[in-house]
Amino acid sequence: MLSTMQDVPLTVTRILTHGMTIHGKSQVTTWTGEPEPHRRSFAEIGRRASQLAHALRDELGVDGDQRVATLMWNNSEHVEAYLAIPSMGAVLHTLNLRLPAEQLVWIVNHADDKVVLVNGSLLPLLAPLLHRLPSVEHVVVSGPGDRSALDGVAPRVHEYEELIAGRPVSYAWPELDERQAAAMCYTSGTTGDPKGVVYSHRSIYLHSMQVNMAESMGLTDKDTTLVVVPQFHVNAWGLPHATFMTGVNMLMPDRFLQPAPLADMIEKERPTHAAAVPTIWQGLLAEVTAKPRDLSSMASVTIGGAACPPSLMEAYDKLGVRLCHAWGMTETSPLGTMSNPPAGLTEEQEWPYRITQGRFPAGVEARLTGPGGESLPWDGESAGELEVRGNWIAGAYYGGADGEDLRPEDKFSEDGWLKTGDVGVISADGYLTLTDRAKDVIKSGGEWISSVGLENAIMAHPDVAEAAVVAVPDEKWGERPLATVVLKEGATADYAALRTFLAQSVAKWQLPERWTIVPAVPKTSVGKFDKKVIRRQYADGELDVTQL
Amino acid sequence: MLSTMQDVPLTVTRILTHGMTIHGKSQVTTWTGEPEPHRRSFAEIGRRASQLAHALRDELGVDGDQRVATLMWNNSEHVEAYLAIPSMGAVLHTLNLRLPAEQLVWIVNHADDKVVLVNGSLLPLLAPLLHRLPSVEHVVVSGPGDRSALDGVAPRVHEYEELIAGRPVSYAWPELDERQAAAMCYTSGTTGDPKGVVYSHRSIYLHSMQVNMAESMGLTDKDTTLVVVPQFHVNAWGLPHATFMTGVNMLMPDRFLQPAPLADMIEKERPTHAAAVPTIWQGLLAEVTAKPRDLSSMASVTIGGAACPPSLMEAYDKLGVRLCHAWGMTETSPLGTMSNPPAGLTEEQEWPYRITQGRFPAGVEARLTGPGGESLPWDGESAGELEVRGNWIAGAYYGGADGEDLRPEDKFSEDGWLKTGDVGVISADGYLTLTDRAKDVIKSGGEWISSVGLENAIMAHPDVAEAAVVAVPDEKWGERPLATVVLKEGATADYAALRTFLAQSVAKWQLPERWTIVPAVPKTSVGKFDKKVIRRQYADGELDVTQL
Repeated sequence: MLSTMQDVPLTVTRILTHGMTIHGKSQVTTWTGEPEPHRRSFAEIGRRASQLAHALRDELGVDGDQRVATLMWNNSEHVEAYLAIPSMGAVLHTLNLRLPAEQLVWIVNHADDKVVLVNGSLLPLLAPLLHRLPSVEHVVVSGPGDRSALDGVAPRVHEYEELIAGRPVSYAWPELDERQAAAMCYTSGTTGDPKGVVYSHRSIYLHSMQVNMAESMGLTDKDTTLVVVPQFHVNAWGLPHATFMTGVNMLMPDRFLQPAPLADMIEKERPTHAAAVPTIWQGLLAEVTAKPRDLSSMASVTIGGAACPPSLMEAYDKLGVRLCHAWGMTETSPLGTMSNPPAGLTEEQEWPYRITQGRFPAGVEARLTGPGGESLPWDGESAGELEVRGNWIAGAYYGGADGEDLRPEDKFSEDGWLKTGDVGVISADGYLTLTDRAKDVIKSGGEWISSVGLENAIMAHPDVAEAAVVAVPDEKWGERPLATVVLKEGATADYAALRTFLAQSVAKWQLPERWTIVPAVPKTSVGKFDKKVIRRQYADGELDVTQL
Repeated sequence: MLSTMQDVPLTVTRILTHGMTIHGKSQVTTWTGEPEPHRRSFAEIGRRASQLAHALRDELGVDGDQRVATLMWNNSEHVEAYLAIPSMGAVLHTLNLRLPAEQLVWIVNHADDKVVLVNGSLLPLLAPLLHRLPSVEHVVVSGPGDRSALDGVAPRVHEYEELIAGRPVSYAWPELDERQAAAMCYTSGTTGDPKGVVYSHRSIYLHSMQVNMAESMGLTDKDTTLVVVPQFHVNAWGLPHATFMTGVNMLMPDRFLQPAPLADMIEKERPTHAAAVPTIWQGLLAEVTAKPRDLSSMASVTIGGAACPPSLMEAYDKLGVRLCHAWGMTETSPLGTMSNPPAGLTEEQEWPYRITQGRFPAGVEARLTGPGGESLPWDGESAGELEVRGNWIAGAYYGGADGEDLRPEDKFSEDGWLKTGDVGVISADGYLTLTDRAKDVIKSGGEWISSVGLENAIMAHPDVAEAAVVAVPDEKWGERPLATVVLKEGATADYAALRTFLAQSVAKWQLPERWTIVPAVPKTSVGKFDKKVIRRQYADGELDVTQL
């Protein structure tokens, strides 16, 4: 029996036409470094999105589902691109300006981008690569910055404002299928080639609704959100589309991502919400400690991209700013969980919930899979790899114009769930706590041992400065932990003492047999333990390992 | 280009499985008239929904998309039915216990209901009709009430608790198509047969998300909503499904809908939100004026089903309870608009927005159609019939088991939009103000004249007690207004004086030529002007009409 309801596609087009009419007075404010920021209403952004679509189609010949890339900061022109490109049926491809040049070239060629919209200040990054980007027929430049880098190297170059000026402020948007591609984003790919996630109109629309639900970010047109998380990073966590859907005002930092201008723009523009990774909040805290600014307008802040140190949460609590953990990834659009505590708790009782990754919304189904592929209970103790399912979760990677979509076994289960590569536990009331990346977990017999858990337990010893634990091959158990320890200056603890200390807090079968004391733990360029290097050193016999 | 995202159906099943796990501790509290209300957790409701599904399938033979009707108050068993019946693939059919018996019989037969779940206290209503309901094979009774009415008249009778007891607390819910029928509801049909709206899993899921968006009701598991609007009335405005999706606690009044028990349950259970029609709030206000109770826990209240008198809003403002207008109908699931004012206004500036019907969310597209079928601008002045489009808007009526769906021309436009039958204006910022039902509007030349507008303007005269305006046929203009006026005792105003007074506030072409002073305006059983009777009296020459 079919329903008698209408069937209307869930599209970015609808977000655009709704936001520019019902919420036409809402604003995108872009920081300029000048005394006054730049302000543009949703109504104007909507009209300019039409002009942009006309320019792309009529002048640059963008047709069908061709890819239009952006290499831009967070600003109102970038919001225009977010709305115009999917609504005309083309595919928005956001380029991560922090990627190495080689990866950028690979990604643009793989996506077969026809046009690149670029901010003037980023031309020194793009211009030297253009001769290696044969699919790119047009470059459209907006915002300040010296254009001379493009002299002689570029395909056809256009000024954004000149290109759209005078074109019609309405557009006969096509009726799209909600499963059609709307936007794409490549994961940075620490191993192997970058992998493209292609978002649909349906996934973006449903994700936008979820972001606006009271249990998630829950903003309205009475709010202003400071969108620090870059628009090239999982669609700025979905905020530009979500906010346009409900008229939430956006405060965009453009290229002014340093702590001082961020503090200035918060004090001046008084956003009620913000979204950024922990390092931003660390830097901002140091800034306002040194030179106080009023941050109290921000009732709530969404923090994700990496685990937030509890001490940082506490520091912001004192400033009247509540940081709320969220977990997600490029493959999850990214809203996977948010750590709002359940009802009826005191502040003290809320704390253990706040430091989890949070709860899943109805749109994200979750399960934990153990080392043998078995499904694990939600008991707060059984650790497994997190797998997720839902309409804004990737089920494959883009295979390129000529290829089939990619479904690598380590990324997607046979029944189509995304394997997140994150290992953790889920409590009976659905709160997720992540402990490891799956590649860092130690698979010992049929059980998993958390490398991070061991590291924290070892580092609790007063003589230990740092400790990294990695999996090494073991004939009997498959893998066992190797403990790599850096002692504090003048410390005297020996292996036996460390092991005895560790045995107080860790199950016996998890205790490492292999120990090595080293002068320093190898680190990656961003300061994380480089476990690949430790594993290679061990394999090559470069470490002086003691067996207990 | 297709996206690489997963494609998961939007179903009531997902609302059920999510609510009973992640929000397993949330509660449905049902008023019993005893000192302690009845409480049941979402986890328990989920398990009992499985038991109910097993009972319906294994014991009563409900198969495929058969209809299971409910004739029940708002209580936790009714919530169980809301979740179990759609999730097993069957169709929940809520019966309006306030309908005349003839309509109930017609509706059950048209829907071909196989089972009726009924509250014991409603057996006196159902039992006498059962011999005229040949499709009903089983009656399942829950809650208090004398069962003897069923003696000898019924098909197979079951006690709800006995029927579900001991059955498995999990169920292999089928994977459903999101466009499949989930629930149905008949409009009461003041003219012609009742008409069935069949909601899909998709429409219920998307509507639930919208209800939970911060711009709409925006509740979380920290809230408790008092669901006064009956579950047989447009699915209690979608609240049972919406709240189960996000863990919002429900307070259910069961059959205790009188002002005194409502005031008691608010004071005792301290809900943060409530939903009901204006008459409920009128009665409650009188009750707490006579015998004060603390209503202040209710931060916000959704009021709909009829326009809310501004004086009622003001009275509740003084009690710290903010009434928020919503507009909708059975055909719109029902969330069409909500009257949250825009940002940045003082209380005084908010007032004109609060008394509108409100703004549309992205999921509801709206247009105004004029008397000639032309599309009208959103200028706050051009009055037209409201037409809407969206995933939770009906595109047809149920044609019965053997029939094609019905798409009457006066209800659906050629391009599939719902003609609401409501006439009003929309402001430039998207606020809807309804003025008339389309059948009451006066179509004069190519223009529409609001009967309600004229009535209010006439009633502003100090000598006038009541005034009803109806359309009467006119050779030149098609229709013209007839003003029917009741004067206050001892008042002396004559037709010319009234017309002169009216001319101060109404455009000249709208002024009625036909006037009649009568001792009383005919009224319907619920106290509304009965304009059908006035039109008939005029047509039959029963009125003493003066032509000015």
